[in-house]
Amino acid sequence: MAELRREPIARRWVVITTDQPKGPSDYLPFKPPYRAQEPEGPCPFCPGNEGMTPKEIFSLKGEGKGWSVRVIPNKFPFFHIEGEFDRRPEGMYDVMEAIGAHEIVVEAPEHHQNLATMDPSQIEKILIAYQERLTDLERDQRFQQFLILKNYPGVLNRHPHSHIMAMPVIPRRIDEEIGGALDYYQRKERCIFCDIIKEEISGKKRVILETVHFLVFSPFASRYPFETWIIPKVHSPDFHHITVEEIGDLSAGIQSLFLCFYKLLADPPYSLAFHTSPVQSRLHRPEYHWHMEARLRIGLREGFEWGTGFFVNPTPPEDAAAFLRGIG
Amino acid sequence: MAELRREPIARRWVVITTDQPKGPSDYLPFKPPYRAQEPEGPCPFCPGNEGMTPKEIFSLKGEGKGWSVRVIPNKFPFFHIEGEFDRRPEGMYDVMEAIGAHEIVVEAPEHHQNLATMDPSQIEKILIAYQERLTDLERDQRFQQFLILKNYPGVLNRHPHSHIMAMPVIPRRIDEEIGGALDYYQRKERCIFCDIIKEEISGKKRVILETVHFLVFSPFASRYPFETWIIPKVHSPDFHHITVEEIGDLSAGIQSLFLCFYKLLADPPYSLAFHTSPVQSRLHRPEYHWHMEARLRIGLREGFEWGTGFFVNPTPPEDAAAFLRGIG
Repeated sequence: MAELRREPIARRWVVITTDQPKGPSDYLPFKPPYRAQEPEGPCPFCPGNEGMTPKEIFSLKGEGKGWSVRVIPNKFPFFHIEGEFDRRPEGMYDVMEAIGAHEIVVEAPEHHQNLATMDPSQIEKILIAYQERLTDLERDQRFQQFLILKNYPGVLNRHPHSHIMAMPVIPRRIDEEIGGALDYYQRKERCIFCDIIKEEISGKKRVILETVHFLVFSPFASRYPFETWIIPKVHSPDFHHITVEEIGDLSAGIQSLFLCFYKLLADPPYSLAFHTSPVQSRLHRPEYHWHMEARLRIGLREGFEWGTGFFVNPTPPEDAAAFLRGIG
Repeated sequence: MAELRREPIARRWVVITTDQPKGPSDYLPFKPPYRAQEPEGPCPFCPGNEGMTPKEIFSLKGEGKGWSVRVIPNKFPFFHIEGEFDRRPEGMYDVMEAIGAHEIVVEAPEHHQNLATMDPSQIEKILIAYQERLTDLERDQRFQQFLILKNYPGVLNRHPHSHIMAMPVIPRRIDEEIGGALDYYQRKERCIFCDIIKEEISGKKRVILETVHFLVFSPFASRYPFETWIIPKVHSPDFHHITVEEIGDLSAGIQSLFLCFYKLLADPPYSLAFHTSPVQSRLHRPEYHWHMEARLRIGLREGFEWGTGFFVNPTPPEDAAAFLRGIG
């Protein structure tokens, strides 16, 4: 049998298989698509090849002469920084230029590196780079929404890197969460994310780990096997207002979580996204609660989800959390 | 550069690359994940192995003694027909049993067959089987929404088959379309889908082909390369109220479209979904306009779309339609 569970924020129903749930071994081994391609020729993200990339935007110094984290414009951006929106009709439709920013954060000098095996002090530097860039980009009034996204391994290069995007519109997924959070706030005068944190901490069965400032858990209506959220325990709408102390604490939490994934599921491919409030005072949402969502790219039922917007998850989050706690 | 185009129904922004758009050769060859697995041992969908499947629900006779199309319960259903919903809270969350129907339509006796190479009279039979099953399932008051979905090749078996699901809730994707259609109707007292059909027929550049009763086109804000919709030109909310004449016409249109895909993109993997109004008089939406959506499973940017609910399409629909018209 299976259950229909309602995701409480966007209010989406998810099918969760409760009979014969799938454990880690059911997802192994991974199929080849999930392995990274490597660039032809030298890697533009490796030290010594800095001349192959567009001009550096930001970097943090390493122990020796070089850099430890480096931010550059994406050579193949989805959003361009120069130009006008030129909002216009096209027949009955709406169109505008894709103005925005699309930067690459090179997360370490080493070509083969991984959140699971990285020193937490290196993860701290990555988070500081994100924070610095968002703080700078926020000054540009054209941008409504930031997105930080990491694919592991990368699609075109396995040198560890992530994407920072500044978008002129609010993406659907964030908009859905904001709608749910606002609706809940209007009914209860409480943050729905804060209530979820209380529920999960008291229930324990979906908790993977806890740090001083963050909760790491499997959401009740997980859409994907081993879906995991990392969320600050104290209400905060914006990732980039994180404190230095919280950055240190979060880095250790991230490293612990990804080490659990690494051990439990043999270095699985994943995507990691930061969900944070829209920026600019007219769009900023104090009711929103920033968090990170991790999705392992295993066991896809792609056609079905596409056809319906409906998710089927064969690994209940209680099982996922227990497996991950057990390996930690 | 790239454009942001707004999908007019669900009002989702899509990034469409207009500089250096990707043509068919950029997607070839496909990577192995898209090739089907084959079952171990004999195929349960092949003639002679009927005893391997659950009891047949419906079939159409073939030319000889056997069947030409056969409908059976799915052995591994997402939704179960027996039981009670048992709607209940779990802490702050909502949960119920996944009650519904999940049937498999075996589309032909031949193990290797394809919408591109099938005789249109066989496609007619598949559509008749869908119609018969939906008409029967509609009597069950528990079901709110039907979904017909085909993955090619199938995930676990390449014998041509599709899924019919009857769900106790309305999936998000349909709900979004209904919301958009209702909003448009309230403002204009016109169907948004009917307006899109008029716009596309008069503009021509995104039209792939037209039959007597159906329009086949690339939507203005296509989320995926070569995304294609098939839609009845006369307003109708429900697929299963299709006439015999329309079924014949639609079968020929489907075969033509999939032959274009087959020739242009070397027998590409795809998913095909029917979007139709919710059923039961309290939920039925006369403003809705049923249609089919085809997605080729090529050129995925999965991490990005998952992280944002935001789509990036490197093949503009005008180019996609021109390529497909050219091959037809």
